[in-house]
Amino acid sequence: VVLEVAVLDVVSSMQDAFEESFRKASPLIAGSAGYISHELRRCVEKSNRYLLLVQWQTLEDHTVGFRSSQQYAEWKRLLHPFYDPFPMVEHYVELGQCPTMGRQ
Amino acid sequence: VVLEVAVLDVVSSMQDAFEESFRKASPLIAGSAGYISHELRRCVEKSNRYLLLVQWQTLEDHTVGFRSSQQYAEWKRLLHPFYDPFPMVEHYVELGQCPTMGRQ
Repeated sequence: VVLEVAVLDVVSSMQDAFEESFRKASPLIAGSAGYISHELRRCVEKSNRYLLLVQWQTLEDHTVGFRSSQQYAEWKRLLHPFYDPFPMVEHYVELGQCPTMGRQ
Repeated sequence: VVLEVAVLDVVSSMQDAFEESFRKASPLIAGSAGYISHELRRCVEKSNRYLLLVQWQTLEDHTVGFRSSQQYAEWKRLLHPFYDPFPMVEHYVELGQCPTMGRQ
């Protein structure tokens, strides 16, 4: 399992619209091959910051599969306008795990 | 539930020692009041980066309870020497949740 981690800074005046857009976008990622689960959380220390955690079976299920899909084009259209700055995305594996271990 | 999130950059030559020290330190946090679970993961993109996720019942279980405990003094002694730079810690709640909602 590979955990995608993105800290999302959202334009402060647009947080309600972002949360609403995220609800609409959620099925797009949830239907992608290799998707396991996701959660969006809100930061206590910085009110316009969110944390997106997505569990994927392999790194490539996210970086190749989802990002080259039609669904991702719609995901971007729904969510990217809210980010300032544009977020950095990282992936984390369990200690000792290879990021492609789950691939068939 | 409040999720503590810390991105840990570890001195590159000391990663094995850090992972060993983390194993020793784990029972210190796991025995703390309000602790639910934790995981340490390794970054795919940056080999000396780790992500620590800890679930607490409330924000104060971490920021007041754990951090003022004897166990935290030992946690610091075991782990803080490995960090460069010293990490920023943030807390994340579910959308719409108040950070102290779980407190009795």
